Amino acid sequence: MAKKRIIVQKYGGTSVADPGKIKHVAKRVKECKDRGYDVAVVVSALGKTTDALLNLAAEISSDPVERELDMLMSTGEQVSVALLAMALHEIGEEAISFTGAQVGIITDSSHTKARILDISTKRIKEQFAKGRIVIVAGFQGTDPDQEITTLGRGGSDVTAVALAKVLSAEVCEIYTDVKGVYTADPRTVKNARKLENISYDEMLEFASLGAQVMQARSIEVASKFNIPIHVRASFCDEQGTMICKEVKKMEDVLVRGVTVNKDEAKVTVCDVPDKPGEASRLFACLAKANINVDMIIQNVSRTRRTDISFTVHASDLKRTQEVVKEANKKIGAIDVKFDKDVAKLSVVGVGMRSHSGVAAKMFGALASEKINIDMISTSEIKISCVIRKKDAEAAVRVTHKAFGLNKKK
Amino acid sequence: MAKKRIIVQKYGGTSVADPGKIKHVAKRVKECKDRGYDVAVVVSALGKTTDALLNLAAEISSDPVERELDMLMSTGEQVSVALLAMALHEIGEEAISFTGAQVGIITDSSHTKARILDISTKRIKEQFAKGRIVIVAGFQGTDPDQEITTLGRGGSDVTAVALAKVLSAEVCEIYTDVKGVYTADPRTVKNARKLENISYDEMLEFASLGAQVMQARSIEVASKFNIPIHVRASFCDEQGTMICKEVKKMEDVLVRGVTVNKDEAKVTVCDVPDKPGEASRLFACLAKANINVDMIIQNVSRTRRTDISFTVHASDLKRTQEVVKEANKKIGAIDVKFDKDVAKLSVVGVGMRSHSGVAAKMFGALASEKINIDMISTSEIKISCVIRKKDAEAAVRVTHKAFGLNKKK
Repeated sequence: MAKKRIIVQKYGGTSVADPGKIKHVAKRVKECKDRGYDVAVVVSALGKTTDALLNLAAEISSDPVERELDMLMSTGEQVSVALLAMALHEIGEEAISFTGAQVGIITDSSHTKARILDISTKRIKEQFAKGRIVIVAGFQGTDPDQEITTLGRGGSDVTAVALAKVLSAEVCEIYTDVKGVYTADPRTVKNARKLENISYDEMLEFASLGAQVMQARSIEVASKFNIPIHVRASFCDEQGTMICKEVKKMEDVLVRGVTVNKDEAKVTVCDVPDKPGEASRLFACLAKANINVDMIIQNVSRTRRTDISFTVHASDLKRTQEVVKEANKKIGAIDVKFDKDVAKLSVVGVGMRSHSGVAAKMFGALASEKINIDMISTSEIKISCVIRKKDAEAAVRVTHKAFGLNKKK
Repeated sequence: MAKKRIIVQKYGGTSVADPGKIKHVAKRVKECKDRGYDVAVVVSALGKTTDALLNLAAEISSDPVERELDMLMSTGEQVSVALLAMALHEIGEEAISFTGAQVGIITDSSHTKARILDISTKRIKEQFAKGRIVIVAGFQGTDPDQEITTLGRGGSDVTAVALAKVLSAEVCEIYTDVKGVYTADPRTVKNARKLENISYDEMLEFASLGAQVMQARSIEVASKFNIPIHVRASFCDEQGTMICKEVKKMEDVLVRGVTVNKDEAKVTVCDVPDKPGEASRLFACLAKANINVDMIIQNVSRTRRTDISFTVHASDLKRTQEVVKEANKKIGAIDVKFDKDVAKLSVVGVGMRSHSGVAAKMFGALASEKINIDMISTSEIKISCVIRKKDAEAAVRVTHKAFGLNKKK
């Protein structure tokens, strides 16, 4: 007998927010099984459960120990898998749920941000052999000492992609509350277009730039093992966006999409003595405090002192202020400025590797709307500009139009 | 170094209903540790969590598969242990939480009503050796195949008592929202008195008769292994009630307490052919349907037909009606009567073993209030009467008074 083909499906928290939605998900899972696949389903915690649990913890401790936080948080997904299994039984499907520990998702011991070391496929394949649908709690695992760990925000995506890898699944379907990946946020840009496909690299930029579809980590894993991902909506049957290896055709398109991130804050350290080691001292302090720095800009200095600007996640701004203030005692910069009213606008596309003129077109578009650019940063397949937060929507629209993204290529 | 003495404490759902109460429990646990004990704490799910989870399941399936129900329900206690560990850390105590699976509570595979087969003490003792307080999720375990199981209602008490056994604890403290075991429900009988101590046998009758302090199963386990239990309030320091082996002194007291159970329903099968096997056929059908029958009365028959009465839990009445109706097709009884408006009044005391006259005094007390008795059933240390539900409170009061239970013996 030929081995049955396998699909891994992942449903996010909004897709399983209440019993009605869980029943709907059960139907979708059944449809996939009826098409002849063995199905492994990864589920996130119900809607706002994660936040509710975090709030409980916050009422008890302002700085809860991470091991116990994992113990607490992992219950959210366990509730979801049990309920989805019940919903599948209710429509006559054989299904069985597993926690991360039960299914053999082994991680390292970094509580609240563990990395998967290994997944055993034994139990899943045993259940497939019995004709059952397997439901796996996302976001969690155990370390080799049986300690419950969680994989951090977006961890369920990582679980799904890793499962797709070890099961040699045909595709990993990521169900979410949007129909796929768009050329821009459709709420801002009316004629934004859903992309049929996108490369891992482009998606990685999209993810880290604030298109809240998938977490960057899961895309890295998918890219590493070349696992096709299908991002699609749980509420309709429409084809979504395929994330896959870069194909020749993609290079014909200059820019794939425009994103904007309003969750960043800008920090400028003014008049830093312009000598070797000053910048590294500053960023070493930030790294030690576990603060992720995004863009960093230091321009050529005309005097003996220079300005260093960088962006951090807005939620890290308070801690950043403390750290920079402390670091400044050693560095001796003259002034530090913090700015929360910024937005980061980016255009992304593998095509720009081999084309020039993208930057010029982008800056031109912004200029035409009299939008001022504070900072610029580029990578091989991305150009980002920090602008005023109030200009964010207008900037997305004008850039989207300038690159003709509404038209199908 | 002398081995440290161990105490097992168990806190019920009302004692950990919200973060404030959890913090309070943490203080009590710390006090015990400060007195020089190694402490293992068993916690139930937060307040109404169990019901909330059951409601979620009910919205998805009217008859959820039991394996998945256990998967779902076991999350409740996992939340509690994590939060209590955080609360202890917050007041500077080293504490670590474990699920039933992690701590090695091995059960059989009877989902939703599993029995503990074995508990490994290895992990707990390792943690004690590190000076830590160990917090164990009550009510749950895993079967030998790593399947999550739950121990049924009151299962956290069973977990606590079983832990006290394997750890050779000095005492198992059961914290609840009442101050101990009373001669009668203080809400009904104003001058009801808290008992200093009570024997396992008496407590067993109290438990199964509806004094909602501890579940019968946990008392059976405690009795089997002679584990002293201290039932006490989590909200005050007052000494509660000790449950222990029968002591000579107890026999001087005729009756220890009066309880009433209003959750039963009476079934009478009239004019059953009075020949061998008819009754067994009926009760075999009920057993097969997993319906627990409490009192059974069959009186001497004067004709060739007889009446059989029995009581079941009110929540089982609907299914009982179906089963009895079906069974009656074979038995050929003339009529079946169902009665929900009943209450069961009981007096309990090991002293009545060696005394006569208890029944007479009880019936006399009821007669003095013109309370009619429907059914009577006796054991060595208990007399129960089924009466009208509306008479329940008056019956408790008059019986409590007749046996002088308000006076300290």
